[in-house]
Amino acid sequence: MKVEIITTGTELLLGEILNTNFTWLAQELNLRGFDVLYQTTVGDNPVRMKEVLDIAAGRADIVITSGGLGPTRGDITKELIAEYCGLDMYMNLEVWNHIYDLLSRRNICIAANNEKQALVPSGAIVLHNGVGTAPGLVLEHGDTTFVMLPGPPFELKHVCEQELFPYFEQRFPHLGIIKSHTLKLRGIGESNLAEMLDDIIINQSNPTIALYARHGEILIRLTAKASSAEEADALIAEMQEQVEKIVGAYVYGYDEDTLPEVLGKELLFRKQTIAFAESCTGGLASSMMTDVPGSSEYVKGSIVSYTNEVKNQVTNVSKTTLSKKGAVSEETAIEMARGARGVIGSDISISITGLAGPGGGTRKKPVGLVYIAVADANGEACRKYNFGGTRTQIKHRAAMAALGFALDRLKESSQTNAEEMIHDHDADR
Amino acid sequence: MKVEIITTGTELLLGEILNTNFTWLAQELNLRGFDVLYQTTVGDNPVRMKEVLDIAAGRADIVITSGGLGPTRGDITKELIAEYCGLDMYMNLEVWNHIYDLLSRRNICIAANNEKQALVPSGAIVLHNGVGTAPGLVLEHGDTTFVMLPGPPFELKHVCEQELFPYFEQRFPHLGIIKSHTLKLRGIGESNLAEMLDDIIINQSNPTIALYARHGEILIRLTAKASSAEEADALIAEMQEQVEKIVGAYVYGYDEDTLPEVLGKELLFRKQTIAFAESCTGGLASSMMTDVPGSSEYVKGSIVSYTNEVKNQVTNVSKTTLSKKGAVSEETAIEMARGARGVIGSDISISITGLAGPGGGTRKKPVGLVYIAVADANGEACRKYNFGGTRTQIKHRAAMAALGFALDRLKESSQTNAEEMIHDHDADR
Repeated sequence: MKVEIITTGTELLLGEILNTNFTWLAQELNLRGFDVLYQTTVGDNPVRMKEVLDIAAGRADIVITSGGLGPTRGDITKELIAEYCGLDMYMNLEVWNHIYDLLSRRNICIAANNEKQALVPSGAIVLHNGVGTAPGLVLEHGDTTFVMLPGPPFELKHVCEQELFPYFEQRFPHLGIIKSHTLKLRGIGESNLAEMLDDIIINQSNPTIALYARHGEILIRLTAKASSAEEADALIAEMQEQVEKIVGAYVYGYDEDTLPEVLGKELLFRKQTIAFAESCTGGLASSMMTDVPGSSEYVKGSIVSYTNEVKNQVTNVSKTTLSKKGAVSEETAIEMARGARGVIGSDISISITGLAGPGGGTRKKPVGLVYIAVADANGEACRKYNFGGTRTQIKHRAAMAALGFALDRLKESSQTNAEEMIHDHDADR
Repeated sequence: MKVEIITTGTELLLGEILNTNFTWLAQELNLRGFDVLYQTTVGDNPVRMKEVLDIAAGRADIVITSGGLGPTRGDITKELIAEYCGLDMYMNLEVWNHIYDLLSRRNICIAANNEKQALVPSGAIVLHNGVGTAPGLVLEHGDTTFVMLPGPPFELKHVCEQELFPYFEQRFPHLGIIKSHTLKLRGIGESNLAEMLDDIIINQSNPTIALYARHGEILIRLTAKASSAEEADALIAEMQEQVEKIVGAYVYGYDEDTLPEVLGKELLFRKQTIAFAESCTGGLASSMMTDVPGSSEYVKGSIVSYTNEVKNQVTNVSKTTLSKKGAVSEETAIEMARGARGVIGSDISISITGLAGPGGGTRKKPVGLVYIAVADANGEACRKYNFGGTRTQIKHRAAMAALGFALDRLKESSQTNAEEMIHDHDADR
């Protein structure tokens, strides 16, 4: 079932409001197995709207409009569609009584133009609007089904959930459903990922696979169409397995997961606490971690040392290291991590020191150069990064990389511990 | 100038993301005197996209696309428009060098499909993309001007502001020019502000006046349309004077000013350094301050104490205060500020302690309760706030309030000092 959604209203074309009606409708209809192929926005202009209706009727099976059912002169959707279909309108008493009751209950005196809202094209199915004056309407015209919905998001959702979707289920029982599953990756670029997955991407049909880049992470979305949720899940699981065989190492979570959440869960699971020693990120890493409800369970704190003096006096980085190696160096990063772990008293600590720019870069130490170190019971480790982007992007990418490093370390360390246990065990013999 | 905006991407048709690109473009183009008459969304499907391009070219003077310029197979906008216009593509070395530099700086190895992004239709004007790999493109075809913009909102805005809008001003001078000037206010609610400015708002014509509430601040946007920049500036200056007569006390900055920047300038001007002691904001306040280039001149650091243990051991809050008054109290806030100032050694320090929620609230200490204290040479002061919103909104509002408090304190303290000097002077007699 090809669907086009037409959202009307000058306020949309002026950019005064976001088109949340379309986003919501698209989600709901895709889930129900409809193919939403086009969305058009047009103003309350008879000529342009008629033209848009004509194009939509020509390329979609179902044309859904939102808006233009109100009492004012500017509301012309119903009138135009009736005219387009060559239908007269009649005063629908049921609708009129509903409008009358609703307005009376709200102590709003009925205006003449409210009668306009009770006019229904002959042969149209009325979708009762329990929360507003404008009913939804379904109209058959040749191969095209026109659906008219009220513009206020609250009314549109109500009419869809109470009336339209049940009607669709009755009328299109054969429609399958669509399910989506998102893999979240870090530590790899979009282009490299696309190349690694090229075979799968070329041969995709159902499920489809799509890549999206976000600051510091990449999303892989698998979307399956099937006759049942179980079947869709099975299709997705199969492709997910193929994908993770190739790039599983970069996957840190799924769907709504965020890196701070995933790291938080890992810390909770291991009953470990974390501390930060931040320089160029200025507190962003700990702020991101504490965006997660309940993070006080495992985040102990952070020392933001924006001067060498503070690095030395609060985080205990030696003056020699700072003068010989500089604030942006592997050695400083490691001493910062070690220092913060001691001062704050956490199981694991992460330090970040680098050049966020735009100034301060040199040939040897360019803007974007960042050292991230981790300290835990197993000792310290450091990674070197070169991030691109603006000052705030570099901060964000560095913070994300730091959380990712901590996550890796937690997983490694458990392996190390396992090995050590085996080793000890051998030693016992 | 009739404009149609075509936004591409399956994620839009699946209803997974809101079409913020269209809303922003529509606002900016309407401001500049363009008539945005149509907006269409279509998926990454060659047949449907070609059809949509053809319809748009038939009814609009300017067709603007967003999305589909990336390196993956799904990105087909540029290829289709070139084909539609019957143009070959060539490898643009300038673009290629930019992509190469950008990816090298980020240590991302260049993938074969990155070359695709450097292909430019012959005769196209390249809109340099300083913050991403995909350049924007302008293409003349008969009476139609095609404009291709990258999909990531951050890149789209950057390319428009830096390249496209200046190009439009040159090319369509008759549209007149639009100038906007924004006043930034804090410490007052939107509805109160609207009431105070009621007369001006009712009688607005040119310039227009619009109020926007952002987390923790309010924007007043004055927009004038005129035939010259000078004329527009004069119109704006006149209305700004009226507005500031009424609400000037709440204005902290203009246009691109941010509270961290304004506070930073104030600190620089007074040769003062600042430190933070953060609990519920988790490092957000210092992170916001360090988003400003050159902030290392006045930000010394921050101690994020997310546990009482750290509040006591690192920030020197007395155990008695913590046990008797609790972590969220005026007393703790004041000791945190005093402690951070001592430990980090700054001229002024700001502490933030509160309940960001969603859990942990009680009747006496509800979620949103935040104490913010300041410590400087003149002693300490504390303010109590009750913020609404989600966990992250409360964090943001608390951080903004803290920076605002620091700004007030700096201005007060200079007065105090002045008074003290006079006082001392009298004492000398």
